Amino acid sequence: MLVVMDKKATKEEIEFVVATIEERGYTARPIPGGERVSIGILNNEGHVDSSPFLGLPGVKDAIHVTRPYKLVSREFKHEDTVIKVGDVTVGNGNLVIIAGPCAVESESQALTIAEHVKRSGAQLFRGGAFKPRTSPYSFQGLGKEGLHILAKVREKTGLPVVTEVMDLENFDLVEKYADVIQIGARNMQNFSLLRRAGHANKPVLLKRGMAATIDEWLMAAEYILEGGNSQVILCERGVRTFVHHSRNTLDLSAVSVVLKESHLPIIVDPSHAAGRRDQVIPLSRAAVAVGAQGLMVEVHHAPEKALSDGAQSLYPRQFERLYRQVQSIFDNLQSGAGRA
Amino acid sequence: MLVVMDKKATKEEIEFVVATIEERGYTARPIPGGERVSIGILNNEGHVDSSPFLGLPGVKDAIHVTRPYKLVSREFKHEDTVIKVGDVTVGNGNLVIIAGPCAVESESQALTIAEHVKRSGAQLFRGGAFKPRTSPYSFQGLGKEGLHILAKVREKTGLPVVTEVMDLENFDLVEKYADVIQIGARNMQNFSLLRRAGHANKPVLLKRGMAATIDEWLMAAEYILEGGNSQVILCERGVRTFVHHSRNTLDLSAVSVVLKESHLPIIVDPSHAAGRRDQVIPLSRAAVAVGAQGLMVEVHHAPEKALSDGAQSLYPRQFERLYRQVQSIFDNLQSGAGRA
Amino acid sequence: MLVVMDKKATKEEIEFVVATIEERGYTARPIPGGERVSIGILNNEGHVDSSPFLGLPGVKDAIHVTRPYKLVSREFKHEDTVIKVGDVTVGNGNLVIIAGPCAVESESQALTIAEHVKRSGAQLFRGGAFKPRTSPYSFQGLGKEGLHILAKVREKTGLPVVTEVMDLENFDLVEKYADVIQIGARNMQNFSLLRRAGHANKPVLLKRGMAATIDEWLMAAEYILEGGNSQVILCERGVRTFVHHSRNTLDLSAVSVVLKESHLPIIVDPSHAAGRRDQVIPLSRAAVAVGAQGLMVEVHHAPEKALSDGAQSLYPRQFERLYRQVQSIFDNLQSGAGRA
Amino acid sequence: MLVVMDKKATKEEIEFVVATIEERGYTARPIPGGERVSIGILNNEGHVDSSPFLGLPGVKDAIHVTRPYKLVSREFKHEDTVIKVGDVTVGNGNLVIIAGPCAVESESQALTIAEHVKRSGAQLFRGGAFKPRTSPYSFQGLGKEGLHILAKVREKTGLPVVTEVMDLENFDLVEKYADVIQIGARNMQNFSLLRRAGHANKPVLLKRGMAATIDEWLMAAEYILEGGNSQVILCERGVRTFVHHSRNTLDLSAVSVVLKESHLPIIVDPSHAAGRRDQVIPLSRAAVAVGAQGLMVEVHHAPEKALSDGAQSLYPRQFERLYRQVQSIFDNLQSGAGRA
Repeated sequence: MLVVMDKKATKEEIEFVVATIEERGYTARPIPGGERVSIGILNNEGHVDSSPFLGLPGVKDAIHVTRPYKLVSREFKHEDTVIKVGDVTVGNGNLVIIAGPCAVESESQALTIAEHVKRSGAQLFRGGAFKPRTSPYSFQGLGKEGLHILAKVREKTGLPVVTEVMDLENFDLVEKYADVIQIGARNMQNFSLLRRAGHANKPVLLKRGMAATIDEWLMAAEYILEGGNSQVILCERGVRTFVHHSRNTLDLSAVSVVLKESHLPIIVDPSHAAGRRDQVIPLSRAAVAVGAQGLMVEVHHAPEKALSDGAQSLYPRQFERLYRQVQSIFDNLQSGAGRA
Repeated sequence: MLVVMDKKATKEEIEFVVATIEERGYTARPIPGGERVSIGILNNEGHVDSSPFLGLPGVKDAIHVTRPYKLVSREFKHEDTVIKVGDVTVGNGNLVIIAGPCAVESESQALTIAEHVKRSGAQLFRGGAFKPRTSPYSFQGLGKEGLHILAKVREKTGLPVVTEVMDLENFDLVEKYADVIQIGARNMQNFSLLRRAGHANKPVLLKRGMAATIDEWLMAAEYILEGGNSQVILCERGVRTFVHHSRNTLDLSAVSVVLKESHLPIIVDPSHAAGRRDQVIPLSRAAVAVGAQGLMVEVHHAPEKALSDGAQSLYPRQFERLYRQVQSIFDNLQSGAGRA
Repeated sequence: MLVVMDKKATKEEIEFVVATIEERGYTARPIPGGERVSIGILNNEGHVDSSPFLGLPGVKDAIHVTRPYKLVSREFKHEDTVIKVGDVTVGNGNLVIIAGPCAVESESQALTIAEHVKRSGAQLFRGGAFKPRTSPYSFQGLGKEGLHILAKVREKTGLPVVTEVMDLENFDLVEKYADVIQIGARNMQNFSLLRRAGHANKPVLLKRGMAATIDEWLMAAEYILEGGNSQVILCERGVRTFVHHSRNTLDLSAVSVVLKESHLPIIVDPSHAAGRRDQVIPLSRAAVAVGAQGLMVEVHHAPEKALSDGAQSLYPRQFERLYRQVQSIFDNLQSGAGRA
Repeated sequence: MLVVMDKKATKEEIEFVVATIEERGYTARPIPGGERVSIGILNNEGHVDSSPFLGLPGVKDAIHVTRPYKLVSREFKHEDTVIKVGDVTVGNGNLVIIAGPCAVESESQALTIAEHVKRSGAQLFRGGAFKPRTSPYSFQGLGKEGLHILAKVREKTGLPVVTEVMDLENFDLVEKYADVIQIGARNMQNFSLLRRAGHANKPVLLKRGMAATIDEWLMAAEYILEGGNSQVILCERGVRTFVHHSRNTLDLSAVSVVLKESHLPIIVDPSHAAGRRDQVIPLSRAAVAVGAQGLMVEVHHAPEKALSDGAQSLYPRQFERLYRQVQSIFDNLQSGAGRA
């Protein structure tokens, strides 16, 4: 951290800042510039909070120089984290496609869709049993029954299942049934949930919050790693901006930055970013082209009858096309031109 | 809802949309325009989801015509909701000032600050026992011990206390000690928490999420009212924008809109919006001038030693000035020029 | 447009709205719903302004049902617009790569870079002679001398040149030298410039403003088409959001929407979106994968000595890699899997 | 500027950065920290561009430590700039109220409104003769005729007039007729216009661009001061965010920051921020309470017939109330509680 002083800061003010820094166990190094003094804070392990310095007399600014995260960082662990889910490997150069309905609605619905997406190439099945819904009057998911249906889908199709956990109350249950436990965008900073996920025995798929910076997102993952669970898959799903032609704005440069900053695998959810079916395939191609290690896509065989998020669900034949296109781009990147 | 068709939509496509609407139990009313047909959806109680219609063949757009909330709406209940907290009344034309540290750090810290703010005019004391922190390495609050300290503060000063609940696990405990239960911005769409708050026996202070629309915020309140607890105080605390000279951008037009749309009281937290001490007093004046029914402000007697958020905490003498200024503006609005 | 009335709107208020609509020459069609009346506005050609209706007594909202643009819309002209620039064709299924430095700094700099990018496959050369700079103290471009250098580059390499016009004063000059006239993001709503571009005899490359909606962007293009120049290339270059790990957030769903809504060709500028060299190649791949019909990329042989925007300029060997990768993705999309 | 190196940056990479800094005439000061080296850039006058350093091998980040502006800064000139417009003084502790229609539509319209607002207390009259309109099909203003009408309004009412200039072509004309020349939000970074305004002989009212940071806004003003015209009034008018219950989000902390950072006067335009009549009065109260030195408000005697922006125009009796309320808050701040 660098504490920048006002041009007119007095010697006493500078000394008070130095004392405040050292009181906290750090080393203060004043750096006289042409016009003003800045004070570097050294010998800190991990994150230094700017709060105590901002707002002191004579202080103009306090600027973070280094990133706040540690365990999730590539500076801490250089090699890619590779996560096994059944026979599927996430993060070692494969492209992993997760597909299924927004919500599990019935056994026949889930099985129908699972068979479709399996046939087209999907390696994992997604489906919500507990659904976070903006309205208390909307369908909230089948709950425990939904988990049972997911277990049957796995049994019949062999596809491992990804499903969301919404609270501590149902965590044990979801942990028991899921192959990958999803933490949704609205819960990205539900720190109690993150702590619990830190000692889960299953991999965690952590979606980016809709107004989260990469630092905040990686710090959310840091909670999980710090708790002892290093099996975290990050999932970019669009951020909220002034733009309204898509439900969210897919931030693909986040994929590049995460690949550089962290060893954790990162996938993309184009369905929630788009919010409309006709943008899902193009955004999926873009996500794979930018370097994402997987996709999570909503598919429904009868979206006009879906109990949630029908507008963004692909028809099975559209998913088939999606799969073919992204696989082709991925193979192309792997072989020919190379990604590096 | 209005479903807008493409100019070239066929008769069959229009009929399919009409059938899809009616299958869901609504009435469809096609409205031929000059160039295209739109289809109104009538006889719906409450919220209609646009998902099943968006993405149907021939559909260009599906536009919400009415608001999704019901119980929180002024169209449902015209009179202002008035909430009693001890001797303090929120929402009936009073200005309520809540003040205290970000986190309870010790009994002497809490008591020192409580006595300061009480002397200056504050009617409620705030202080966090459970703290949501971006970093797992930051101070997370004193937990249960913090709640005991809050109880002592209440006992010694007579000030009712506002404190945050972060999860279901500690809800009973917080409910027992708090006079007002705060749900923070990061938990605004933690629906499990909202459902639990719906049968709490204490008023709930519901902060706006940092990227929440007013509709989403009022729908979060709707969860609480729908559960049976109508004692909800809304709190605007700034939203995340491209702007970085303040931590968040305080959205004061939200206060006007909420006052018009809902019967629930609304207050403003200028401290988290600003993130820097020097903006807190001006924003407090603005919040009261726009019509907010209260303020929640962070105060610390030694902010440079605070364990969290020191940068935005006012010194006691600054809080005294704040109180004097906002009270003066409030009195002025009440008496002289009038607010209406 | 749909004017939505309050639940409690009186008969007189509804009649006043109807009268206000008809006074403007439109047809008003009241649509009684279950709870409230809405009033459709029909028989309007082109855009209806919501201003006169919003704010009338009893009016709750005024909602646009149709898009405001006409000449640029695919509903008006179905076939793709194809633009010839020398031997290069933009918009008919080719991928067009424009490359060059941010600013023309000298003849030798421009020629060195032009030869590099031509060798790697670029079809057009970009380079600024007039530079919009945030600071009056920054290098503002070589002006007329820069245009002369561009002419020499074209003469020696055969590459047509794209360069920016900043004002009416220099429009004739830029029009004379450029093969494609660029209007920058900051000037997207400089309506005097747009009107002048409407009777330019060269194609116009119109960048999206950094906070522009697609409607606003297409309306800016509408100014040019309405003036008689139908040769407009749209260029997505990222929008401003709360995100700060890239200079702007590249909005790739905008490409999908524009391809659907308009017949004009759309390309992407990954350099200004990223603002940092290491994100440019991945974003270029994503842009081509999403369906963009071209790229405009900054390249410099010695970016650490560049007079502007060095941080985002690729080294020639990086551009070579970029070209190879995006061409490979493009070929793949065209042939194998298909884009549709 | 501080250039932050990777943890693994080599000695050669550090030396190359030092050399690059010194080649540009600055002093480089390496600061060894615990884990990584940072390099301070000293002895720079004015703005240092981060571009040449970002993206060099071994460089992780380049962080601005000081602000880029100079002439507009309070560090450069401590005393408030005071601007005389006829008998009206802007910036010396007065509250200046500018009011009038969005566009001048006719002599009788302009005069009617001018007399209303004068009677209610307005000190300056606003009205557009050249109107920037999103659509080429919307009313674009009366042009020169509008300026003649403004001159008549001034003659008959004694109110000085504020009107917008859109391009170089009409600058001389607007300069001749206007008492204050307005540069609109869309032109905030029209640098040719700013340079021309730098040698105008009239004060300039510079609106903030709808996605401009304070640094960019002050740098736009710097262009004008650098050109020789120090009579600049800044005008906050809301920024574009994800929020859609108001047309823009009024950023009132910007007022506090500008008052601290710059000696230029700052006023607020609540009408364009709100975009809806019912938010204008509350936001005006807030703007004055936060410390703005003036307001610019749209008023129309028959807004439902207005040729532009009727939705946000106040009725004369509403403006009367607005004036009374804000004046009362202002007097209250001046006298009693004090603002400091």
